[in-house]
Amino acid sequence: MSGIGPERLSLNTATVRAQWSLAQCIEGCARHGIAGISPWRDKLHEMGVEAAATAIRDAGLRVSGLCRGGWYTASGRLDQAVIDDNRRAVDEAAALGADCLVMVVGGLPAGSRDLPAARSLIEEGLASTLDHARAANVPVAIEPLHPMYAADRAAISTMGQALDICDRLGPGIGCALDVYHVWWDPDVEAQIARAGKERLMAFHICDWLVPTRDLLTDRGMMGDGVIDIARLRGLVEAQGFDGLNEVEIFSEHDWWRRDADEVLATIVERGATAC
Amino acid sequence: MSGIGPERLSLNTATVRAQWSLAQCIEGCARHGIAGISPWRDKLHEMGVEAAATAIRDAGLRVSGLCRGGWYTASGRLDQAVIDDNRRAVDEAAALGADCLVMVVGGLPAGSRDLPAARSLIEEGLASTLDHARAANVPVAIEPLHPMYAADRAAISTMGQALDICDRLGPGIGCALDVYHVWWDPDVEAQIARAGKERLMAFHICDWLVPTRDLLTDRGMMGDGVIDIARLRGLVEAQGFDGLNEVEIFSEHDWWRRDADEVLATIVERGATAC
Repeated sequence: MSGIGPERLSLNTATVRAQWSLAQCIEGCARHGIAGISPWRDKLHEMGVEAAATAIRDAGLRVSGLCRGGWYTASGRLDQAVIDDNRRAVDEAAALGADCLVMVVGGLPAGSRDLPAARSLIEEGLASTLDHARAANVPVAIEPLHPMYAADRAAISTMGQALDICDRLGPGIGCALDVYHVWWDPDVEAQIARAGKERLMAFHICDWLVPTRDLLTDRGMMGDGVIDIARLRGLVEAQGFDGLNEVEIFSEHDWWRRDADEVLATIVERGATAC
Repeated sequence: MSGIGPERLSLNTATVRAQWSLAQCIEGCARHGIAGISPWRDKLHEMGVEAAATAIRDAGLRVSGLCRGGWYTASGRLDQAVIDDNRRAVDEAAALGADCLVMVVGGLPAGSRDLPAARSLIEEGLASTLDHARAANVPVAIEPLHPMYAADRAAISTMGQALDICDRLGPGIGCALDVYHVWWDPDVEAQIARAGKERLMAFHICDWLVPTRDLLTDRGMMGDGVIDIARLRGLVEAQGFDGLNEVEIFSEHDWWRRDADEVLATIVERGATAC
Protein backbone atom coordinates (compact mmCIF):
# COMPACT_ATOMS: atom_id res chain seq x y z
CA MET A 1 0.00 0.00 0.00
CA SER A 2 3.00 2.33 -0.21
CA GLY A 3 2.29 3.81 -3.61
CA ILE A 4 2.51 2.44 -7.10
CA GLY A 5 5.78 2.06 -9.00
CA PRO A 6 5.85 2.70 -12.76
CA GLU A 7 5.99 -1.07 -13.30
CA ARG A 8 2.38 -1.12 -12.00
CA LEU A 9 1.16 1.90 -14.01
CA SER A 10 -0.51 2.15 -17.39
CA LEU A 11 -1.13 5.20 -19.52
CA ASN A 12 -4.57 5.69 -20.97
CA THR A 13 -3.94 7.63 -24.14
CA ALA A 14 -6.78 10.07 -23.38
CA THR A 15 -4.49 11.57 -20.73
CA VAL A 16 -2.27 13.09 -23.42
CA ARG A 17 -4.69 12.97 -26.28
CA ALA A 18 -4.16 16.62 -27.16
CA GLN A 19 -0.37 16.22 -27.34
CA TRP A 20 0.61 12.78 -28.59
CA SER A 21 -0.20 10.17 -31.22
CA LEU A 22 -0.34 6.54 -30.17
CA ALA A 23 3.20 6.00 -31.48
CA GLN A 24 4.41 8.85 -29.26
CA CYS A 25 2.48 7.42 -26.29
CA ILE A 26 4.17 4.04 -26.76
CA GLU A 27 7.62 5.64 -26.90
CA GLY A 28 6.76 7.88 -23.95
CA CYS A 29 5.70 4.95 -21.75
CA ALA A 30 8.91 3.11 -22.57
CA ARG A 31 10.97 6.23 -21.82
CA HIS A 32 9.30 6.79 -18.43
CA GLY A 33 9.26 3.13 -17.43
CA ILE A 34 5.46 2.97 -17.43
CA ALA A 35 4.56 -0.67 -17.86
CA GLY A 36 1.35 -0.48 -19.83
CA ILE A 37 -0.82 1.41 -22.21
CA SER A 38 -4.53 1.62 -22.94
CA PRO A 39 -5.25 3.07 -26.37
CA TRP A 40 -8.40 4.82 -27.45
CA ARG A 41 -9.64 3.53 -30.76
CA ASP A 42 -9.37 6.86 -32.60
CA LYS A 43 -5.62 6.92 -31.99
CA LEU A 44 -5.40 3.20 -32.70
CA HIS A 45 -7.04 3.63 -36.10
CA GLU A 46 -4.75 6.54 -36.96
CA MET A 47 -1.72 4.33 -36.36
CA GLY A 48 -3.23 1.14 -37.70
CA VAL A 49 -3.97 -1.89 -35.55
CA GLU A 50 -1.15 -4.12 -36.77
CA ALA A 51 1.49 -1.39 -36.57
CA ALA A 52 0.31 -0.50 -33.08
CA ALA A 53 0.32 -4.11 -31.91
CA THR A 54 3.86 -4.55 -33.16
CA ALA A 55 5.14 -1.31 -31.63
CA ILE A 56 3.50 -2.06 -28.27
CA ARG A 57 4.97 -5.57 -28.24
CA ASP A 58 8.40 -4.30 -29.24
CA ALA A 59 8.27 -1.73 -26.44
CA GLY A 60 7.46 -4.47 -23.94
CA LEU A 61 4.21 -2.86 -22.86
CA ARG A 62 1.16 -4.59 -21.46
CA VAL A 63 -2.21 -3.42 -22.83
CA SER A 64 -4.39 -2.82 -19.79
CA GLY A 65 -7.48 -2.21 -21.91
CA LEU A 66 -8.88 -0.94 -25.16
CA CYS A 67 -11.16 2.12 -24.98
CA ARG A 68 -13.87 1.69 -25.98
CA GLY A 69 -16.83 -0.34 -27.15
CA GLY A 70 -20.43 0.23 -26.26
CA TRP A 71 -22.68 3.18 -27.23
CA TYR A 72 -25.57 0.82 -27.78
CA THR A 73 -28.34 3.37 -27.28
CA ALA A 74 -27.59 6.18 -29.70
CA SER A 75 -30.32 5.41 -32.22
CA GLY A 76 -32.86 4.01 -29.76
CA ARG A 77 -32.51 0.51 -31.16
CA LEU A 78 -29.72 -2.00 -31.51
CA ASP A 79 -28.76 -1.41 -35.11
CA GLN A 80 -26.34 -3.41 -37.18
CA ALA A 81 -23.75 -0.63 -37.42
CA VAL A 82 -23.36 -0.61 -33.62
CA ILE A 83 -23.22 -4.40 -33.44
CA ASP A 84 -20.57 -4.46 -36.17
CA ASP A 85 -18.52 -1.71 -34.60
CA ASN A 86 -18.44 -3.59 -31.33
CA ARG A 87 -17.32 -6.76 -33.12
CA ARG A 88 -14.47 -4.78 -34.65
CA ALA A 89 -13.59 -3.43 -31.21
CA VAL A 90 -13.40 -7.00 -29.90
CA ASP A 91 -11.15 -7.99 -32.80
CA GLU A 92 -8.89 -5.01 -32.16
CA ALA A 93 -8.66 -5.84 -28.47
CA ALA A 94 -7.70 -9.40 -29.42
CA ALA A 95 -5.07 -8.17 -31.88
CA LEU A 96 -3.52 -6.03 -29.15
CA GLY A 97 -3.74 -8.75 -26.52
CA ALA A 98 -5.64 -6.30 -24.33
CA ASP A 99 -6.58 -7.28 -20.79
CA CYS A 100 -10.14 -6.22 -21.61
CA LEU A 101 -12.38 -4.20 -23.90
CA VAL A 102 -13.79 -1.29 -21.90
CA MET A 103 -17.45 -0.57 -22.55
CA VAL A 104 -19.01 2.87 -22.31
CA VAL A 105 -22.53 1.66 -22.74
CA GLY A 106 -24.45 4.75 -23.84
CA GLY A 107 -27.07 7.00 -22.26
CA LEU A 108 -30.60 7.92 -23.21
CA PRO A 109 -31.50 7.84 -26.90
CA ALA A 110 -32.19 11.31 -28.32
CA GLY A 111 -35.59 12.52 -27.24
CA SER A 112 -36.10 9.73 -24.71
CA ARG A 113 -36.65 9.98 -20.96
CA ASP A 114 -36.99 6.24 -20.51
CA LEU A 115 -34.01 5.02 -18.50
CA PRO A 116 -35.35 1.49 -17.93
CA ALA A 117 -35.73 1.06 -21.72
CA ALA A 118 -32.20 2.37 -22.31
CA ARG A 119 -30.87 -0.09 -19.78
CA SER A 120 -32.64 -3.00 -21.45
CA LEU A 121 -31.17 -1.97 -24.79
CA ILE A 122 -27.70 -1.80 -23.24
CA GLU A 123 -28.00 -5.28 -21.81
CA GLU A 124 -29.18 -6.62 -25.16
CA GLY A 125 -26.21 -4.97 -26.85
CA LEU A 126 -23.73 -6.31 -24.34
CA ALA A 127 -25.12 -9.81 -24.79
CA SER A 128 -24.64 -9.57 -28.55
CA THR A 129 -21.03 -8.40 -28.18
CA LEU A 130 -20.29 -10.97 -25.53
CA ASP A 131 -20.93 -13.91 -27.84
CA HIS A 132 -18.20 -12.71 -30.16
CA ALA A 133 -15.90 -11.66 -27.31
CA ARG A 134 -16.04 -15.09 -25.71
CA ALA A 135 -15.07 -16.71 -29.00
CA ALA A 136 -12.18 -14.23 -29.31
CA ASN A 137 -11.20 -14.69 -25.66
CA VAL A 138 -11.55 -10.95 -24.96
CA PRO A 139 -12.91 -10.02 -21.51
CA VAL A 140 -15.67 -7.40 -21.72
CA ALA A 141 -15.51 -4.76 -18.98
CA ILE A 142 -18.56 -2.60 -18.29
CA GLU A 143 -17.40 0.78 -17.02
CA PRO A 144 -20.05 2.31 -14.79
CA LEU A 145 -19.80 6.05 -15.33
CA HIS A 146 -20.52 8.76 -12.80
CA PRO A 147 -24.27 9.47 -12.50
CA MET A 148 -23.71 12.90 -14.03
CA TYR A 149 -23.23 11.07 -17.35
CA ALA A 150 -26.42 9.00 -17.10
CA ALA A 151 -28.19 10.99 -19.80
CA ASP A 152 -25.50 11.29 -22.42
CA ARG A 153 -22.82 8.64 -21.89
CA ALA A 154 -23.77 5.70 -19.69
CA ALA A 155 -27.05 4.71 -18.10
CA ILE A 156 -25.06 2.22 -16.02
CA SER A 157 -23.94 4.32 -13.05
CA THR A 158 -22.83 1.98 -10.29
CA MET A 159 -20.81 -1.17 -9.77
CA GLY A 160 -23.90 -2.83 -8.33
CA GLN A 161 -25.88 -2.14 -11.45
CA ALA A 162 -23.06 -3.40 -13.70
CA LEU A 163 -22.69 -6.57 -11.66
CA ASP A 164 -26.41 -7.26 -11.86
CA ILE A 165 -25.95 -7.34 -15.63
CA CYS A 166 -22.85 -9.53 -15.31
CA ASP A 167 -24.78 -11.95 -13.10
CA ARG A 168 -27.39 -12.31 -15.81
CA LEU A 169 -25.00 -12.57 -18.77
CA GLY A 170 -22.57 -15.04 -17.27
CA PRO A 171 -18.82 -15.55 -17.71
CA GLY A 172 -16.55 -13.28 -19.76
CA ILE A 173 -18.03 -9.98 -18.61
CA GLY A 174 -17.04 -7.86 -15.62
CA CYS A 175 -16.29 -4.28 -14.60
CA ALA A 176 -13.78 -1.56 -15.23
CA LEU A 177 -13.62 0.42 -11.99
CA ASP A 178 -12.62 4.05 -12.44
CA VAL A 179 -12.22 5.79 -9.10
CA TYR A 180 -13.56 9.02 -10.61
CA HIS A 181 -16.90 7.41 -11.34
CA VAL A 182 -17.49 5.41 -8.17
CA TRP A 183 -15.59 7.05 -5.30
CA TRP A 184 -18.76 8.61 -3.86
CA ASP A 185 -20.75 5.34 -3.80
CA PRO A 186 -21.55 4.18 -0.24
CA ASP A 187 -21.89 0.68 -1.63
CA VAL A 188 -18.57 0.51 -3.47
CA GLU A 189 -16.74 -1.60 -0.89
CA ALA A 190 -19.45 -4.27 -0.88
CA GLN A 191 -19.65 -4.27 -4.67
CA ILE A 192 -15.89 -4.68 -5.11
CA ALA A 193 -16.09 -7.71 -2.84
CA ARG A 194 -19.06 -8.99 -4.83
CA ALA A 195 -17.18 -8.55 -8.11
CA GLY A 196 -14.20 -10.60 -7.01
CA LYS A 197 -10.95 -10.99 -8.90
CA GLU A 198 -12.52 -12.54 -11.99
CA ARG A 199 -14.81 -9.59 -12.67
CA LEU A 200 -12.46 -6.76 -11.68
CA MET A 201 -10.97 -6.33 -15.11
CA ALA A 202 -9.51 -2.82 -14.97
CA PHE A 203 -8.68 -0.18 -12.37
CA HIS A 204 -8.56 3.43 -13.56
CA ILE A 205 -7.19 6.29 -11.50
CA CYS A 206 -7.31 10.09 -11.50
CA ASP A 207 -8.82 12.52 -9.00
CA TRP A 208 -11.98 14.54 -8.29
CA LEU A 209 -11.21 18.24 -8.13
CA VAL A 210 -13.01 20.71 -5.86
CA PRO A 211 -14.35 22.74 -7.51
CA THR A 212 -14.97 20.79 -10.72
CA ARG A 213 -15.50 23.31 -13.50
CA ASP A 214 -16.68 21.03 -16.27
CA LEU A 215 -18.60 17.78 -16.16
CA LEU A 216 -16.34 16.02 -18.65
CA THR A 217 -12.93 17.62 -18.98
CA ASP A 218 -11.90 18.80 -15.53
CA ARG A 219 -10.50 15.66 -13.96
CA GLY A 220 -7.50 15.89 -11.69
CA MET A 221 -4.06 14.31 -11.38
CA MET A 222 -3.84 11.84 -8.51
CA GLY A 223 -3.28 13.75 -5.31
CA ASP A 224 -4.84 17.00 -6.49
CA GLY A 225 -8.37 16.08 -5.43
CA VAL A 226 -10.38 14.33 -2.75
CA ILE A 227 -10.51 10.67 -3.79
CA ASP A 228 -8.99 8.21 -1.35
CA ILE A 229 -7.27 6.28 -4.14
CA ALA A 230 -5.18 4.14 -1.81
CA ARG A 231 -8.29 2.87 -0.04
CA LEU A 232 -9.98 1.86 -3.28
CA ARG A 233 -6.79 0.30 -4.60
CA GLY A 234 -6.50 -1.66 -1.37
CA LEU A 235 -10.04 -2.93 -1.80
CA VAL A 236 -9.47 -4.21 -5.34
CA GLU A 237 -6.09 -5.68 -4.43
CA ALA A 238 -7.70 -7.47 -1.49
CA GLN A 239 -9.79 -9.30 -4.11
CA GLY A 240 -6.61 -10.37 -5.89
CA PHE A 241 -6.64 -7.77 -8.66
CA ASP A 242 -3.17 -7.78 -10.20
CA GLY A 243 -3.75 -5.66 -13.28
CA LEU A 244 -2.16 -2.30 -13.91
CA ASN A 245 -3.25 1.02 -12.45
CA GLU A 246 -4.39 2.87 -15.53
CA VAL A 247 -4.19 6.65 -15.48
CA GLU A 248 -7.01 8.33 -17.41
CA ILE A 249 -7.30 12.11 -17.04
CA PHE A 250 -9.52 14.37 -19.15
CA SER A 251 -8.20 17.85 -18.47
CA GLU A 252 -8.93 20.57 -20.97
CA HIS A 253 -7.49 23.41 -18.92
CA ASP A 254 -4.49 21.79 -17.28
CA TRP A 255 -2.88 18.48 -18.26
CA TRP A 256 -3.85 18.59 -21.92
CA ARG A 257 -1.99 21.93 -22.12
CA ARG A 258 1.27 20.73 -20.61
CA ASP A 259 4.26 19.10 -22.19
CA ALA A 260 3.41 15.41 -22.39
CA ASP A 261 6.72 14.30 -20.89
CA GLU A 262 5.95 16.49 -17.88
CA VAL A 263 2.55 14.77 -17.63
CA LEU A 264 4.13 11.30 -17.66
CA ALA A 265 6.79 12.30 -15.15
CA THR A 266 4.08 13.65 -12.87
CA ILE A 267 2.10 10.42 -13.22
CA VAL A 268 5.13 8.41 -12.13
CA GLU A 269 5.77 10.73 -9.17
CA ARG A 270 2.13 10.79 -8.05
CA GLY A 271 1.82 7.05 -8.46
CA ALA A 272 4.51 6.73 -5.82
CA THR A 273 3.23 9.46 -3.48
CA ALA A 274 -0.53 9.87 -3.90
CA CYS A 275 -1.98 6.44 -4.59
CA MET B 1 -51.15 11.79 -13.60
CA SER B 2 -52.30 14.48 -16.03
CA GLY B 3 -50.02 17.27 -14.84
CA ILE B 4 -49.95 19.38 -11.73
CA GLY B 5 -52.25 22.32 -11.18
CA PRO B 6 -50.94 25.42 -9.40
CA GLU B 7 -52.87 24.33 -6.30
CA ARG B 8 -50.34 21.47 -6.06
CA LEU B 9 -47.22 23.57 -6.74
CA SER B 10 -44.82 25.32 -4.41
CA LEU B 11 -42.14 27.87 -5.23
CA ASN B 12 -38.71 27.33 -3.76
CA THR B 13 -37.33 30.84 -3.45
CA ALA B 14 -33.98 29.80 -4.95
CA THR B 15 -35.77 29.64 -8.31
CA VAL B 16 -36.03 33.44 -8.41
CA ARG B 17 -33.34 34.25 -5.90
CA ALA B 18 -31.64 36.71 -8.25
CA GLN B 19 -34.83 38.65 -8.86
CA TRP B 20 -37.09 38.68 -5.81
CA SER B 21 -37.09 39.13 -2.06
CA LEU B 22 -39.16 36.73 0.04
CA ALA B 23 -41.93 39.33 0.28
CA GLN B 24 -42.03 39.51 -3.51
CA CYS B 25 -42.04 35.70 -3.74
CA ILE B 26 -45.04 35.52 -1.41
CA GLU B 27 -46.94 38.11 -3.45
CA GLY B 28 -45.90 36.39 -6.68
CA CYS B 29 -47.18 32.98 -5.55
CA ALA B 30 -50.51 34.50 -4.57
CA ARG B 31 -50.73 36.33 -7.90
CA HIS B 32 -50.03 33.16 -9.92
CA GLY B 33 -52.19 30.89 -7.80
CA ILE B 34 -49.20 28.82 -6.65
CA ALA B 35 -50.27 27.15 -3.43
CA GLY B 36 -47.04 27.01 -1.48
CA ILE B 37 -43.64 28.43 -0.85
CA SER B 38 -40.32 27.12 0.44
CA PRO B 39 -38.05 29.91 1.67
CA TRP B 40 -34.30 29.79 1.87
CA ARG B 41 -33.08 31.07 5.19
CA ASP B 42 -31.05 33.95 3.77
CA LYS B 43 -34.19 35.51 2.33
CA LEU B 44 -36.13 34.60 5.46
CA HIS B 45 -33.63 36.43 7.66
CA GLU B 46 -33.72 39.50 5.40
CA MET B 47 -37.48 39.74 5.85
CA GLY B 48 -37.60 38.60 9.47
CA VAL B 49 -39.17 35.35 10.60
CA GLU B 50 -42.26 36.82 12.23
CA ALA B 51 -43.02 39.17 9.34
CA ALA B 52 -42.58 36.33 6.89
CA ALA B 53 -44.78 33.95 8.86
CA THR B 54 -47.53 36.58 8.98
CA ALA B 55 -47.29 37.42 5.27
CA ILE B 56 -47.28 33.75 4.24
CA ARG B 57 -50.30 33.06 6.44
CA ASP B 58 -52.14 36.12 5.14
CA ALA B 59 -51.45 35.03 1.56
CA GLY B 60 -52.92 31.61 2.32
CA LEU B 61 -49.75 29.77 1.32
CA ARG B 62 -48.58 26.41 2.60
CA VAL B 63 -44.88 26.16 3.50
CA SER B 64 -43.62 23.01 1.78
CA GLY B 65 -40.25 23.24 3.50
CA LEU B 66 -37.55 25.45 4.91
CA CYS B 67 -34.18 25.38 3.15
CA ARG B 68 -31.93 24.53 4.79
CA GLY B 69 -30.27 23.03 7.86
CA GLY B 70 -27.31 20.70 7.91
CA TRP B 71 -23.70 21.48 6.88
CA TYR B 72 -22.44 19.39 9.77
CA THR B 73 -19.01 18.63 8.33
CA ALA B 74 -17.50 22.01 7.52
CA SER B 75 -15.00 22.12 10.37
CA GLY B 76 -14.34 18.39 10.61
CA ARG B 77 -16.07 18.16 13.98
CA LEU B 78 -19.55 18.82 15.30
CA ASP B 79 -19.02 22.25 16.79
CA GLN B 80 -21.44 24.22 18.87
CA ALA B 81 -22.01 26.91 16.24
CA VAL B 82 -23.36 24.30 13.81
CA ILE B 83 -25.51 22.66 16.46
CA ASP B 84 -26.93 26.04 17.45
CA ASP B 85 -27.58 27.11 13.90
CA ASN B 86 -29.52 23.93 13.26
CA ARG B 87 -31.59 24.53 16.41
CA ARG B 88 -32.45 27.97 15.08
CA ALA B 89 -33.39 26.45 11.74
CA VAL B 90 -35.77 24.08 13.55
CA ASP B 91 -37.31 27.01 15.43
CA GLU B 92 -37.74 28.95 12.21
CA ALA B 93 -39.40 25.98 10.51
CA ALA B 94 -41.75 25.71 13.48
CA ALA B 95 -42.55 29.43 13.32
CA LEU B 96 -43.46 29.10 9.64
CA GLY B 97 -45.43 25.89 10.14
CA ALA B 98 -43.19 24.30 7.49
CA ASP B 99 -43.93 20.75 6.32
CA CYS B 100 -40.27 19.94 7.01
CA LEU B 101 -36.78 21.30 7.53
CA VAL B 102 -34.67 20.30 4.53
CA MET B 103 -31.15 19.16 5.39
CA VAL B 104 -28.17 19.60 3.10
CA VAL B 105 -25.85 17.60 5.25
CA GLY B 106 -22.36 18.69 4.15
CA GLY B 107 -19.52 17.07 2.24
CA LEU B 108 -15.92 16.31 3.08
CA PRO B 109 -14.22 18.56 5.63
CA ALA B 110 -11.48 20.71 4.12
CA GLY B 111 -8.38 18.62 3.49
CA SER B 112 -10.13 15.32 4.16
CA ARG B 113 -10.59 12.35 1.84
CA ASP B 114 -12.39 10.28 4.46
CA LEU B 115 -15.98 9.84 3.30
CA PRO B 116 -16.89 7.25 5.95
CA ALA B 117 -15.78 9.69 8.67
CA ALA B 118 -17.79 12.52 7.10
CA ARG B 119 -20.84 10.29 7.02
CA SER B 120 -20.46 9.41 10.69
CA LEU B 121 -20.20 13.08 11.55
CA ILE B 122 -23.35 13.81 9.53
CA GLU B 123 -25.30 11.14 11.34
CA GLU B 124 -24.13 12.47 14.70
CA GLY B 125 -25.21 15.96 13.68
CA LEU B 126 -28.61 14.83 12.48
CA ALA B 127 -29.18 12.98 15.75
CA SER B 128 -28.41 16.13 17.72
CA THR B 129 -30.81 18.23 15.63
CA LEU B 130 -33.50 15.57 15.71
CA ASP B 131 -33.88 15.73 19.49
CA HIS B 132 -34.80 19.39 19.26
CA ALA B 133 -36.90 18.91 16.11
CA ARG B 134 -39.03 16.23 17.73
CA ALA B 135 -39.74 18.51 20.67
CA ALA B 136 -40.70 21.28 18.24
CA ASN B 137 -42.73 18.88 16.08
CA VAL B 138 -40.68 19.72 12.97
CA PRO B 139 -40.05 16.85 10.54
CA VAL B 140 -36.40 16.63 9.48
CA ALA B 141 -35.90 15.79 5.79
CA ILE B 142 -32.51 14.57 4.61
CA GLU B 143 -32.01 15.65 1.01
CA PRO B 144 -29.68 13.22 -0.77
CA LEU B 145 -27.78 15.31 -3.30
CA HIS B 146 -26.48 14.17 -6.67
CA PRO B 147 -23.16 12.30 -6.34
CA MET B 148 -21.40 15.16 -8.11
CA TYR B 149 -21.84 17.11 -4.85
CA ALA B 150 -20.40 14.41 -2.58
CA ALA B 151 -17.20 16.32 -1.95
CA ASP B 152 -18.49 19.81 -1.31
CA ARG B 153 -22.19 19.69 -0.38
CA ALA B 154 -23.57 16.35 0.72
CA ALA B 155 -21.86 13.04 1.40
CA ILE B 156 -25.35 11.48 1.41
CA SER B 157 -25.97 10.74 -2.26
CA THR B 158 -28.86 8.28 -2.50
CA MET B 159 -32.28 7.65 -1.02
CA GLY B 160 -31.05 4.29 0.18
CA GLN B 161 -28.22 5.87 2.12
CA ALA B 162 -30.55 8.47 3.65
CA LEU B 163 -33.07 5.82 4.66
CA ASP B 164 -30.36 3.74 6.31
CA ILE B 165 -29.74 6.75 8.55
CA CYS B 166 -33.47 7.23 9.12
CA ASP B 167 -33.79 3.57 10.11
CA ARG B 168 -31.12 4.07 12.75
CA LEU B 169 -32.38 7.41 14.08
CA GLY B 170 -36.07 6.54 14.35
CA PRO B 171 -39.21 8.64 13.95
CA GLY B 172 -39.29 12.29 12.91
CA ILE B 173 -36.70 12.03 10.14
CA GLY B 174 -37.20 11.21 6.47
CA CYS B 175 -36.22 12.33 2.99
CA ALA B 176 -36.66 15.23 0.65
CA LEU B 177 -36.64 13.72 -2.82
CA ASP B 178 -35.43 16.09 -5.54
CA VAL B 179 -35.76 14.55 -8.98
CA TYR B 180 -32.57 16.30 -10.09
CA HIS B 181 -30.52 14.42 -7.53
CA VAL B 182 -31.97 10.92 -7.81
CA TRP B 183 -33.43 10.48 -11.30
CA TRP B 184 -30.44 8.39 -12.46
CA ASP B 185 -30.56 5.95 -9.51
CA PRO B 186 -31.51 2.41 -10.62
CA ASP B 187 -32.68 1.80 -7.05
CA VAL B 188 -34.95 4.84 -6.73
CA GLU B 189 -38.23 2.99 -7.23
CA ALA B 190 -37.44 0.47 -4.51
CA GLN B 191 -36.24 3.17 -2.14
CA ILE B 192 -39.37 5.30 -2.61
CA ALA B 193 -41.42 2.25 -1.67
CA ARG B 194 -39.14 1.64 1.31
CA ALA B 195 -39.52 5.25 2.45
CA GLY B 196 -43.31 5.14 2.49
CA LYS B 197 -45.62 8.09 3.03
CA GLU B 198 -44.32 8.91 6.50
CA ARG B 199 -40.74 9.45 5.34
CA LEU B 200 -41.42 11.10 1.99
CA MET B 201 -41.44 14.63 3.36
CA ALA B 202 -40.83 16.75 0.27
CA PHE B 203 -40.84 16.35 -3.51
CA HIS B 204 -38.72 18.80 -5.52
CA ILE B 205 -38.90 19.17 -9.27
CA CYS B 206 -36.81 20.69 -12.05
CA ASP B 207 -35.00 19.05 -14.97
CA TRP B 208 -31.59 17.70 -16.05
CA LEU B 209 -30.32 19.52 -19.12
CA VAL B 210 -28.19 17.93 -21.85
CA PRO B 211 -25.60 19.29 -21.97
CA THR B 212 -25.24 20.55 -18.40
CA ARG B 213 -22.72 23.40 -18.44
CA ASP B 214 -22.21 23.89 -14.72
CA LEU B 215 -22.40 21.44 -11.85
CA LEU B 216 -24.46 23.76 -9.64
CA THR B 217 -26.28 26.45 -11.58
CA ASP B 218 -27.44 24.91 -14.84
CA ARG B 219 -30.64 23.17 -13.83
CA GLY B 220 -33.57 23.15 -16.19
CA MET B 221 -37.26 24.04 -16.16
CA MET B 222 -39.52 21.01 -16.12
CA GLY B 223 -39.85 19.71 -19.68
CA ASP B 224 -36.57 21.13 -20.94
CA GLY B 225 -34.49 18.11 -19.92
CA VAL B 226 -34.52 14.33 -19.70
CA ILE B 227 -36.04 13.51 -16.32
CA ASP B 228 -39.23 11.48 -16.39
CA ILE B 229 -40.85 13.64 -13.72
CA ALA B 230 -44.31 12.12 -14.12
CA ARG B 231 -42.93 8.65 -13.39
CA LEU B 232 -41.20 9.77 -10.20
CA ARG B 233 -44.25 11.76 -9.11
CA GLY B 234 -46.39 8.70 -9.72
CA LEU B 235 -44.09 6.63 -7.53
CA VAL B 236 -44.24 9.03 -4.57
CA GLU B 237 -47.99 9.51 -4.96
CA ALA B 238 -48.43 5.74 -4.99
CA GLN B 239 -46.99 5.83 -1.48
CA GLY B 240 -49.63 8.37 -0.45
CA PHE B 241 -47.48 11.49 -0.69
CA ASP B 242 -49.85 14.46 -0.68
CA GLY B 243 -47.42 17.34 -0.22
CA LEU B 244 -46.78 20.02 -2.79
CA ASN B 245 -44.56 19.73 -5.87
CA GLU B 246 -41.82 22.20 -5.03
CA VAL B 247 -40.01 23.84 -7.93
CA GLU B 248 -36.35 24.50 -7.24
CA ILE B 249 -34.23 25.64 -10.19
CA PHE B 250 -30.68 27.01 -9.99
CA SER B 251 -30.11 28.65 -13.35
CA GLU B 252 -27.42 31.27 -13.64
CA HIS B 253 -27.65 31.69 -17.39
CA ASP B 254 -31.36 31.36 -18.02
CA TRP B 255 -34.12 31.51 -15.41
CA TRP B 256 -32.30 33.81 -12.98
CA ARG B 257 -31.99 36.31 -15.83
CA ARG B 258 -35.66 36.40 -16.77
CA ASP B 259 -38.50 38.46 -15.41
CA ALA B 260 -39.70 36.62 -12.31
CA ASP B 261 -43.35 36.78 -13.30
CA GLU B 262 -42.40 35.06 -16.55
CA VAL B 263 -40.63 32.36 -14.51
CA LEU B 264 -43.70 31.76 -12.34
CA ALA B 265 -46.04 31.72 -15.34
CA THR B 266 -43.78 29.16 -16.99
CA ILE B 267 -43.75 27.03 -13.85
CA VAL B 268 -47.56 26.96 -13.83
CA GLU B 269 -47.67 26.07 -17.52
CA ARG B 270 -45.01 23.35 -17.25
CA GLY B 271 -46.61 21.95 -14.12
CA ALA B 272 -49.66 21.26 -16.26
CA THR B 273 -47.86 20.00 -19.36
CA ALA B 274 -44.49 18.50 -18.39
CA CYS B 275 -44.90 16.83 -15.01
